[in-house]
Amino acid sequence: MWRAAHRLISHRSKNLCDPRWNPNFHNSIQSYSSGFTYNFGRTCKPFNPYLRRQGSDVQICIYPTRDYIENLHGSTELCYGKSFRIQNRFYGSATTKIQRNPIFSTINSDDINHFREILGEKNVIQDEDRLSAANMDWMRKYKGSSKLLLQPRSTEEVSQILKYCNSRCLAVVPQGGNTGLVGGSVPVFDEVIINIGSMNNIISFDKVSGILVCEAGCILENLISFVDNQGFIMPLDLGAKGSCQIGGNISTNAGGLRLVRYGSLHGNVLGLEAVLANGTVLDMLGTLRKDNTGYDLKHLFIGSEGSLGVVTKVSILTPPKLSSVNVAFLACKDYLSCQKLLLEAKRKLGEILSAFEFIDNQSFNVVLNHLEGARNPLPPSMHNFYVLIETTGSDESYDKEKLEAFLLHSMEGGLVSDGVLAQDINQASSFWHIREGIPESIMKAGAVYKYDLSIPVEKMYDLVEEMRVRLGHSAKVMGYGHLGDSNLHLNISTPQYDDAILAQIEPFVYEWTSKHRGSISAEHGVGLMKANKIHYSKSAETVQLMASIKKLLDPNGILNPYKVLPGSLASSS
Amino acid sequence: MWRAAHRLISHRSKNLCDPRWNPNFHNSIQSYSSGFTYNFGRTCKPFNPYLRRQGSDVQICIYPTRDYIENLHGSTELCYGKSFRIQNRFYGSATTKIQRNPIFSTINSDDINHFREILGEKNVIQDEDRLSAANMDWMRKYKGSSKLLLQPRSTEEVSQILKYCNSRCLAVVPQGGNTGLVGGSVPVFDEVIINIGSMNNIISFDKVSGILVCEAGCILENLISFVDNQGFIMPLDLGAKGSCQIGGNISTNAGGLRLVRYGSLHGNVLGLEAVLANGTVLDMLGTLRKDNTGYDLKHLFIGSEGSLGVVTKVSILTPPKLSSVNVAFLACKDYLSCQKLLLEAKRKLGEILSAFEFIDNQSFNVVLNHLEGARNPLPPSMHNFYVLIETTGSDESYDKEKLEAFLLHSMEGGLVSDGVLAQDINQASSFWHIREGIPESIMKAGAVYKYDLSIPVEKMYDLVEEMRVRLGHSAKVMGYGHLGDSNLHLNISTPQYDDAILAQIEPFVYEWTSKHRGSISAEHGVGLMKANKIHYSKSAETVQLMASIKKLLDPNGILNPYKVLPGSLASSS
Repeated sequence: MWRAAHRLISHRSKNLCDPRWNPNFHNSIQSYSSGFTYNFGRTCKPFNPYLRRQGSDVQICIYPTRDYIENLHGSTELCYGKSFRIQNRFYGSATTKIQRNPIFSTINSDDINHFREILGEKNVIQDEDRLSAANMDWMRKYKGSSKLLLQPRSTEEVSQILKYCNSRCLAVVPQGGNTGLVGGSVPVFDEVIINIGSMNNIISFDKVSGILVCEAGCILENLISFVDNQGFIMPLDLGAKGSCQIGGNISTNAGGLRLVRYGSLHGNVLGLEAVLANGTVLDMLGTLRKDNTGYDLKHLFIGSEGSLGVVTKVSILTPPKLSSVNVAFLACKDYLSCQKLLLEAKRKLGEILSAFEFIDNQSFNVVLNHLEGARNPLPPSMHNFYVLIETTGSDESYDKEKLEAFLLHSMEGGLVSDGVLAQDINQASSFWHIREGIPESIMKAGAVYKYDLSIPVEKMYDLVEEMRVRLGHSAKVMGYGHLGDSNLHLNISTPQYDDAILAQIEPFVYEWTSKHRGSISAEHGVGLMKANKIHYSKSAETVQLMASIKKLLDPNGILNPYKVLPGSLASSS
Repeated sequence: MWRAAHRLISHRSKNLCDPRWNPNFHNSIQSYSSGFTYNFGRTCKPFNPYLRRQGSDVQICIYPTRDYIENLHGSTELCYGKSFRIQNRFYGSATTKIQRNPIFSTINSDDINHFREILGEKNVIQDEDRLSAANMDWMRKYKGSSKLLLQPRSTEEVSQILKYCNSRCLAVVPQGGNTGLVGGSVPVFDEVIINIGSMNNIISFDKVSGILVCEAGCILENLISFVDNQGFIMPLDLGAKGSCQIGGNISTNAGGLRLVRYGSLHGNVLGLEAVLANGTVLDMLGTLRKDNTGYDLKHLFIGSEGSLGVVTKVSILTPPKLSSVNVAFLACKDYLSCQKLLLEAKRKLGEILSAFEFIDNQSFNVVLNHLEGARNPLPPSMHNFYVLIETTGSDESYDKEKLEAFLLHSMEGGLVSDGVLAQDINQASSFWHIREGIPESIMKAGAVYKYDLSIPVEKMYDLVEEMRVRLGHSAKVMGYGHLGDSNLHLNISTPQYDDAILAQIEPFVYEWTSKHRGSISAEHGVGLMKANKIHYSKSAETVQLMASIKKLLDPNGILNPYKVLPGSLASSS
């Protein structure tokens, strides 16, 4: 205990700041990790399909970021640098076979001419390369066969497109950065792709209230930079920020790295403009924190994955930027201690707590064994759980002292068995490197079955333990994730893929999650992938009402068909 | 400048805490204010209609709290202690004359018998006194003529009631604590009153995540006490907490005192159970911070004032309780300085800022002239604006030093002309007393026309100034409110009420608010009072969609008729 306390005190930092906010972070990490080129969110961009046209070959280069890797649910191919190399495959629920809905028309030359009149020649795209990229998601898991991509530049153009498509019963798929993980942003068959990327203007920013109004096609990273220059941060940050667009973020209700601190988009989005299937423009673009005049309809469009309307403009509350960041890496003897520590952290650190991540011993060992550059920050004792705590506040010395006092108190109380407080940016980065490196490490260890679940925190780890009992020696079961958000990443590793193992895992994992009132999709949405699994997390009556609302807003079902709702309901509602 | 800085430094507090959290606060205030018996939210309960039966006479005793007084929009009678005394009248938009919708049936003896079968004899109430109380809102502005009050004890009973009412086309009004301000919770004609107050069980509390699940009839103050004992606070606090129920809070999307810090109920409510008009129970009672499985339908019921369904259970995220509270009272030379100060406070105090209230010189003078016990905390210089800043954090000494540093910096930068930091609870209370006493002071000064508006912060005070130009010497125009929430309380005072003045104010005030994309109801909802004014804040297309959703969820329109939506749309949709 004393050693640990001493260690905590001795690692005082003078210049620690959030590595994700530091433009030099990438270089720092590289030098620290002796040549390892793992790319973090800030300095790399996830795969942008359009890049494929610019290269001299068709190699696909995906730089996996924390968010991406840990949330892949299908099979994919990853490579590093320029050499195409199959890294591994992820396993999980296969997508259901579906048939094209014959109610939808197919594109003809009159349609093309009409769209050219609305949008001009160059924004009506039939080029095969462009279409090929837009037809496929970045994981290369979902592939449509659209023959037409439209690039509107204004809400009015979106409205005209949808009004026409609705009258012709042409199905459409709204597409932002196409960085989704559940097949929500690519066509399933020949839907017309409406890409919002040309609508990328910032409309206004209120420096007093921190309220940003912009078009839906703005790339998240550009917005982050813009508000950063004004002294604010976006309440949303995720690995795909270099490509994803704010309209897509809102349509999928993206969670990301800052949710534990700033809450969900339902709390931060103040207003929206959206276009309905029939072309009606819904102006709900308020910029007010308080507005109780009628039903707050914008929430219907947050997380409905473009199936109720196309989001065209956004108003969002951005918090002020804070300068002081501290990171600690701790060991706990059991899961109960992790829970109690979270409770204490919320109380004692309260307003400065910005991350609370947990890692079980099995995940931790995989990192030490398989991740280049990963080192145990603690003396080599056996611990069952590890916790990474990050604080972000406005006063460095106060915040650090507060964190130190909290950690000492937690150690004296027995909640923490050992721990270290980062003394500089390199050490902070190395702590995050362990947490962020888990998915990659597990990939290297063999085949992996991945689940991204939201489960009440007191029950969360029971699933991991039950799964261990269930699978016995046939698989390694690992649990880690965002404890502060009750978000578990359940990873099951085997030497090679085995149908029998999958049958042991599913539907058990969904049924267990459902039984404990968890969510089978914590933050990625339903898309195509889980449209027929929504009943695991939502009651029949609720799903039926969703279908009725879909029918009300989009009677012909032209908006992002085959997604979100079970096929049976979508057609019969 | 130096004097002011010195004053700030000299007023260090050792034992300051939030008066609203201190059970002895009421006594402290009383002794401080030399016998003045202004009652604060914690120690008094707003008028509970049922109390009328218990008294030996019919005197109505309303203890006005900050929230209540400043938000009254109609005429009312107030008294203090036991003596009935007409205090004043508030003026504003008159309610529109409406006709009973003949589609609705009237109650007969078969109905009564049926309800007795469902609920038992004692929960089917026809007693005149009970009905008389439930037919009227606490302001005595709205009065219905219901002949029946039902008190279900479970969701199943609510479901059976609604299913029957829907089949018989009997209109209903859901009622919680009946503390609303827009006539949303009382019958307009003979609607059946469904009072949820018997459903007041706490179902669960997760001490790690702070997630509370309870029935909708729980009184807010009881929930505040319950989670307080667990080391948490409700993210919602308002003057009516002694009577209002959480189901009603959610149905009106109540704002309250903590919104600037913890955000709206759309961010804090994690799940709901609601019963639709046809008796269908929608189980959306998730307890997860992250859940992206389909449309997030609970938001439809937050703020829809019982017109889409009856909320029966609630899951809500409660933040950890923090112990350190500091209050400063400052003077600024102009409104721009107030705005800049808010920006600085958000940045420098960031995570500990819990209130940012502004008061203009006109409001301040009215308080000094009319409010018993009010004293100017600053030397008697002329200032144009005053700002009250409160911080709430987890470490008293750190937080206080942080606030002091911020204040000194703001004075050096010229944003603050003078200021004082409360040195003890009495001084903190006296600062809040000024802010909270404004509505009462204005009442004493004459007739008052009151508007509760949400306007983008940079434009907010323009309305006050334009109104001054518009009204000239005929009226005194005052502006104050929650600058941190962009919530303006516009008060116009005249020696006596005058139709000509009202005609000068309205519809100008609504048109101006609408033109600047403000809200004509910041936090009280639409109810009966503003059902025909909703178009000032919402577009025609949006209101039309609201009406379509109402029609979808409640085809017979039995739920809280005549409220929220314009009469024309409600019947034609």
